[in-house]
Amino acid sequence: MAESVERLQQRVEELERELAQERSRRALGSGDGGGGRARIEKMSSEVVDSNPYSRLMALKRMGIVSDYEKIRTFTVAIVGVGGVGSVTAEMLTRCGIGKLLLFDYDKVELANMNRLFFQPHQAGLSKVQAAEHTLRNINPDVLFEVHNYNITTVENFEHFMNRISNGGLEEGKPVDLVLSCVDNFEARMTINTACNELGQTWMESGVSENAVSGHIQLIIPGESACFACAPPLVVAANIDEKTLKREGVCAASLPTTMGVVAGILVQNVLNLLCFYRFLLNFGTVSFYLGYNAMQDFFPTMSMKPNPQCDDRNCRKQQKEYKKKVAALPKQEVIQEEGEIIHEDNEWGIELVSEISEEELKKSSGPIPDLPEGIIVAYTVPQKQEDSVPEVTVEDSGESLEDLMAKMKNI
Amino acid sequence: MAESVERLQQRVEELERELAQERSRRALGSGDGGGGRARIEKMSSEVVDSNPYSRLMALKRMGIVSDYEKIRTFTVAIVGVGGVGSVTAEMLTRCGIGKLLLFDYDKVELANMNRLFFQPHQAGLSKVQAAEHTLRNINPDVLFEVHNYNITTVENFEHFMNRISNGGLEEGKPVDLVLSCVDNFEARMTINTACNELGQTWMESGVSENAVSGHIQLIIPGESACFACAPPLVVAANIDEKTLKREGVCAASLPTTMGVVAGILVQNVLNLLCFYRFLLNFGTVSFYLGYNAMQDFFPTMSMKPNPQCDDRNCRKQQKEYKKKVAALPKQEVIQEEGEIIHEDNEWGIELVSEISEEELKKSSGPIPDLPEGIIVAYTVPQKQEDSVPEVTVEDSGESLEDLMAKMKNI
Repeated sequence: MAESVERLQQRVEELERELAQERSRRALGSGDGGGGRARIEKMSSEVVDSNPYSRLMALKRMGIVSDYEKIRTFTVAIVGVGGVGSVTAEMLTRCGIGKLLLFDYDKVELANMNRLFFQPHQAGLSKVQAAEHTLRNINPDVLFEVHNYNITTVENFEHFMNRISNGGLEEGKPVDLVLSCVDNFEARMTINTACNELGQTWMESGVSENAVSGHIQLIIPGESACFACAPPLVVAANIDEKTLKREGVCAASLPTTMGVVAGILVQNVLNLLCFYRFLLNFGTVSFYLGYNAMQDFFPTMSMKPNPQCDDRNCRKQQKEYKKKVAALPKQEVIQEEGEIIHEDNEWGIELVSEISEEELKKSSGPIPDLPEGIIVAYTVPQKQEDSVPEVTVEDSGESLEDLMAKMKNI
Repeated sequence: MAESVERLQQRVEELERELAQERSRRALGSGDGGGGRARIEKMSSEVVDSNPYSRLMALKRMGIVSDYEKIRTFTVAIVGVGGVGSVTAEMLTRCGIGKLLLFDYDKVELANMNRLFFQPHQAGLSKVQAAEHTLRNINPDVLFEVHNYNITTVENFEHFMNRISNGGLEEGKPVDLVLSCVDNFEARMTINTACNELGQTWMESGVSENAVSGHIQLIIPGESACFACAPPLVVAANIDEKTLKREGVCAASLPTTMGVVAGILVQNVLNLLCFYRFLLNFGTVSFYLGYNAMQDFFPTMSMKPNPQCDDRNCRKQQKEYKKKVAALPKQEVIQEEGEIIHEDNEWGIELVSEISEEELKKSSGPIPDLPEGIIVAYTVPQKQEDSVPEVTVEDSGESLEDLMAKMKNI
């Protein structure tokens, strides 16, 4: 009884304190998540309504992750804070990531409201500024560094490279991972160039212009195909990106596809960071995972780098990777027939189960004639009878080389 | 002493009330999306930054949907506004759905902040009230009807049935679809009971207690298995839900899995509403789609109803469905060998490509011994070496009947 009185008195004191805080917050007129919550020094697994980390720390009790708190030691750079990038940033923020670097030069518009995250009252603000404000309110424990510029200009590219190399949790250390959430070929190639030069592992993501398919792709320079080795066909397919940006025309988008792509992207980030860096027991990492919303089809595959890749640094990384593999004792490289374990890469990643070419053909549209060794990296939805497809592959009659050359001229 | 306890309890209640009021004033006050945007009478496809529908209307130009504006004629009821339900509601709101009915009796807590949607300043508000406020700011063109109650009590159940039957866009007409985004067996069974009685098509969704797998399931009473015919194994597997709710213990959750499940749920809602109701050219609908975040595995399948289902109305709907099928000319029912087209259901749905039992076995954990005709509806993640799985199937040694009986007693 005495104990229960004491507990009640504590609760009264606690509530009085909260009420006073609440009143002062309202008086300050902070609004919009103003105030949010207080910072938390150490993640706790205590199961109380006021603990924002209880459901994440429960992953430990469930045997999914052995040391969830380590997430606070990671830094992720997100390039592009649009339909995929903003949700990706929100998920990582809510997971309690250590630090996020955001890069974008766009402004929030009402035309973005068909995707998650931004709200109408933010129209006119820069995307990185609006995102930082919302994300800080959601989780003030995360460190944010935002850059409101276009990474593809010469000057900004240098700054971008510098921040990737030095913007880690401890200044001077590189970030752990770069995520590409951009919507155009040029920006993807820029990230690719930077990561090949730095030997920086990154993940590509994308949603098709017709909004109903998307993909994520893990790129480990030298080991898996880089973006210049074999870009996804949705980009390589005869689409003039300038057409899509011209007056009166825009790409379609849906919050569903964008949300699913962000979800599988961040889940693979967690798998990569948590499982492979610290040998925790999260899941496997997909080298390539597609999503076709028309058929609920999710192809996985992996692509070897192209020895003739145009990117000098990609070829250099490939040579270094080969040297490392050659230096390994044989039994570590080949486990079972055909199954190669890449014990040597920094992440210790194995190739995931791949979809067969036949399965891909069956569930995809027509596949163009590609040079040997290059496989389709995107699911082209099957033509529907009444559809008026603007994005076709078989009509182009162009080789991948032609398309690559054309894209370079964009 | 007894008096002082009572007084303290009163004081706690009083303070909790004041705090909730204070929080609601601040949340509903200025900021926080305040202002939003003006209502829009008619969806336009004009490509200008100020048009929130341009990217959705572009689906028409891309040949994906022929009449996107029809989305405004649909009403969807969402039961459960938690990690999956809130994102589901946000996606449908951003897509410009006609009307949403939201049912939940929970309050927003800081402990919910590891999932998308709710923000710390909304802690203390009822979930439906907080959601309605945010969603209205995002899209004031959507009509909202919210109910802050538990549908499983006798009185509320009647009201719930009434609103499903009459809460359509035009009062007196039923809703088009019910979505179950709840987190417990009892609420799912309640929705199942209501929908079997009303012959109401609905979709089930769920995320496992260990946060790394989820599913969606389409239930057309009489045609596909209802929730009482064969509940997903994650529920049937020896989990005492009361254990998970007891002091100091909570289920794990991740924004990734929740976001992916919401995304595939809403995409299938769009496919169902747009494609089948109006013969637009969206994609196919999955009867069952799972997501295993540990392996990026997405099984699809369909389940026939159980002729011995405990639900009297399910058995009744099955008989009616059989009569309708029998009345159809043979050639409409069987197209190719083994491929049955369900021309007779209200939605005109075909069974989607199913995963083979072997594939499921390969990618899942051990499968328990089930009565003939009942198949596994959930992917049990493979045991990892270092994991401490709390949720196992093979250890229970119980039959599905035992488990069902046990669950009924919960």
